[in-house]
Amino acid sequence: MAERIYFDNAATTPLDPRVLDAMLPFLRHRSGNPSSLHAEGREAREAVDLAREQVARLLGARPGEVVFTAGGTESNALAIRGVLSTNGLQGAHVITSAVEHPAVLACCRQLEQEGVALSLLPVDRTGTVHPDSLRQALQPNTRLVSVMAANNVVGTLQPIAELARITHQHGAWFHTDAVQAVGKIPLNMENCPPIDLLSFSAHKFNGPKGVGALYVRTGTRLRPILDGGGQEGGLRSGTENVPGIVGLGAAAAIAREEISAETARVVQLRDRIIDSILARVPNAYLIGDRYRRLPGHVCFGFSGSEGEAIRLLLELDQQGIAISSGSACSAPHHGGSSHVLEAMGFDPFQARGSLRISLGRFNTAKEADRLIEILPRSVRSLRTITSLAAAN
Amino acid sequence: MAERIYFDNAATTPLDPRVLDAMLPFLRHRSGNPSSLHAEGREAREAVDLAREQVARLLGARPGEVVFTAGGTESNALAIRGVLSTNGLQGAHVITSAVEHPAVLACCRQLEQEGVALSLLPVDRTGTVHPDSLRQALQPNTRLVSVMAANNVVGTLQPIAELARITHQHGAWFHTDAVQAVGKIPLNMENCPPIDLLSFSAHKFNGPKGVGALYVRTGTRLRPILDGGGQEGGLRSGTENVPGIVGLGAAAAIAREEISAETARVVQLRDRIIDSILARVPNAYLIGDRYRRLPGHVCFGFSGSEGEAIRLLLELDQQGIAISSGSACSAPHHGGSSHVLEAMGFDPFQARGSLRISLGRFNTAKEADRLIEILPRSVRSLRTITSLAAAN
Repeated sequence: MAERIYFDNAATTPLDPRVLDAMLPFLRHRSGNPSSLHAEGREAREAVDLAREQVARLLGARPGEVVFTAGGTESNALAIRGVLSTNGLQGAHVITSAVEHPAVLACCRQLEQEGVALSLLPVDRTGTVHPDSLRQALQPNTRLVSVMAANNVVGTLQPIAELARITHQHGAWFHTDAVQAVGKIPLNMENCPPIDLLSFSAHKFNGPKGVGALYVRTGTRLRPILDGGGQEGGLRSGTENVPGIVGLGAAAAIAREEISAETARVVQLRDRIIDSILARVPNAYLIGDRYRRLPGHVCFGFSGSEGEAIRLLLELDQQGIAISSGSACSAPHHGGSSHVLEAMGFDPFQARGSLRISLGRFNTAKEADRLIEILPRSVRSLRTITSLAAAN
Repeated sequence: MAERIYFDNAATTPLDPRVLDAMLPFLRHRSGNPSSLHAEGREAREAVDLAREQVARLLGARPGEVVFTAGGTESNALAIRGVLSTNGLQGAHVITSAVEHPAVLACCRQLEQEGVALSLLPVDRTGTVHPDSLRQALQPNTRLVSVMAANNVVGTLQPIAELARITHQHGAWFHTDAVQAVGKIPLNMENCPPIDLLSFSAHKFNGPKGVGALYVRTGTRLRPILDGGGQEGGLRSGTENVPGIVGLGAAAAIAREEISAETARVVQLRDRIIDSILARVPNAYLIGDRYRRLPGHVCFGFSGSEGEAIRLLLELDQQGIAISSGSACSAPHHGGSSHVLEAMGFDPFQARGSLRISLGRFNTAKEADRLIEILPRSVRSLRTITSLAAAN
C-alpha cells in the first residue's frame, strides 16, 4: 500500500524506523529476561533502565516514577482501580468526564458496580470540561479525579493543569489519560506538580503497539492490578516486554527532540486542511475547539450528510486515503453514535456523522493537498447519490 | 555474546528468526489498528484472525476460544479473577497448589484479602500434586481449581487431566497455568475436555515478549480485568499488539509443526546432562521427578553447597554459560528461598540452593557437552574455596 495516505494517526501511528532500529537487537540476539542474574539478563535490565530514563526525560519525571505496562488501557485501569482500591472501594467517590475514552469510562462504570460512587463532568459544545463543574462535583469522599489531556474523537485539549490544581486543593488524587497527548503536546511533570498519575501508550506516537506506561508521582499510593513476580517495583508483574519497552524509550527520546518543530509543522497542515475544507465544502463544520485542539487533529461534520459518514470513509479509503469516523477504539463506534458528540450537545443523528482526520509524523503537505482535493468531491458525489435516493 | 551458551530457556527464550520474519511487516509498513474500517485496519484484523487460528490449531481449540493478552501473568489474572468475580467474590472458594508461579499465588492471595477462601494443595518430594489431596480440598463453594501444567522451578509435570476431571465432577471450573508447557508438551483441548482455562505466554516458546493468550473454553463465564474498547470479544480491551500477536501465531505454528521431533531431541540432551552430572559431581542430586518433567528442564541440588548456588551461577556466567537459580521471575528469588522447594520438603537451606538448566530450540549437543565439562569443575572449585574458607 505504498501509494496510500494515512490520516488515522489518532487510532495508531506507523512505527518510526529509528524506533524499530533500536528494538531490533532485542528482537534478535539480545533476548534475556531482565530478572535473570547472568549477562543476558543484566543486558536486558540495562536496556529497560535506559528506556525508563528516556521516558522520564520526555515527561520531566524521575525514572522511578515510570511504570511500564502493556498500553493505555492497562495504564488507565492501574491508575484508577489502583488508587481507589488502596483504601477499599466502598464509600469512595470518583469523578471523570463524560467524554473520556471507553478505557476510563468502562473502568469507572465497573467500579461503580463494585460500590464506588461515580460523577461524570459535563462538557460544553467544544468538548471542554469547565473547572467550575469540577468544583461543584467534588465531595468530601472524592478520592480521584480523572480527566483526559486531549480527546480522541474531537481533539479538544482539557485544562488539566487547572483541574489538577482544584483536585489537589480538595485533597484528592488527579489522573489524566494522556494517550492522545504524550509526544504531541509538551507535558512536564515538574511544571505541572498537581498531576499524580498520567497514562500513555507508545503506539500513539510512533512507538510499538502493546506497550505503554503510567507515570506515578512519588508518594502516590496505588495497588497493582497484576500481581506476581513483582516487576516494576511491584506495581506491574510479568516479564518485561524488553523490545517494546526499548521501543517506547526510543519513541520518547525522538519525541522530546522533535516535538517543537514537529508540532509547528503539523499544526500548519491541520489548519490548512480545516480552512480549505470549510471553504470548499458547503455545510461542513468543525467539531471541537478551533485552537485548543491537538496539533494534528481535525474533526468535521457535514450538515445533512451525517448518516453518510461511514460511506464517506469507505469512499476515501477506495481513493487511497485512510481516515476514521470518530474513534477506532471500539466496534460499537462503527456507525454507532459517539458518546463524546452527544455529551457535546449534538443530536444522535449528528453524533453518528463525524469524520476524523488525524495527522502524524509521516504526513506531508502534498498528502494534505490531496485530501483537500478529494474530500470535497467525495462529499459532493455522496450528496448527489443521497438526494437522488431521497427523490425516488 | 556470540560465543555464549544460553541454558535459561525457562526464564525466556530467544525469538525464532522465522517468528521475527513474520512480525517484521507489521513493524514496518503494515501498521494499522484492527478496529479501523479502512484497508490498513482490515489488513491488521486479518493478521490477528490468522494468528488466532494458528494458536487455536496448536491447542486443538476453536479460534473464538483464544483471548490475546500481554503475557502469562495477565492471562492468569484474567482466568482466576475473571471466573471468581462473575458471581461476587464473597463466599467463593479457590484451590491452587503450593508450588504455583507467583503470578497465580499472589493473585489468589490478593483475592483472599478481598474475601475469597483459599486452599493450597500440598505436593510430594517430586513436586507433584496428588489427586486425592484435591478431592479432600474441594468444598461445596469451590468455584475454581488452578494447578499449573508444569513447574517453572523444578520442571515437574502435574496430572492436570485427572485434576481437571475431578474438578469438573465437582462442578467447579479448572484453570491451568501452562506458561512452561505450551509449545513443549502436547496439549490438546479436544482430548482434554475438562480444561476450561489455560494460560500461556509467547516468549517461553521462542515467540516475542509482551504477548500471551488465555484459552477460554466455550461456555466458561468470566469478567474482564481490562475494560474499555471491547477488543477480544469484550474480554480484553486495548489496541491489539498486532506484531506481537502475529509473532505468537507464528511461534504456535512452528511449535505445532516441530514439537514431536524437538521434544525427542531436547529430552535426549536433558537426559545426557542429568546422567553425566549425577555421575561426575559427587553429592549432586536431581530435583523433581526423573521422568514426569519438562523435556528441556534440569534442576540440580548439590549437597553441602546449597549456599553457593548464586556463586556457581555467576561462575558459569563468567565461563559463558547462562543458567538460573530456580526462577528468574522475581527479585526475591535471587538468593532467597524457593517456596517450591520448601513445599517439596526441602529445608530452607537446601531450598536456596538449586540450579536450573533449561534447554530450548537453539541448544546443541555440543553446548550440552560443554556444560558437562565445565559444571563439575566449577562445583569442585567452589567447594575447595568453601572448605578453605571453613578451615580458616
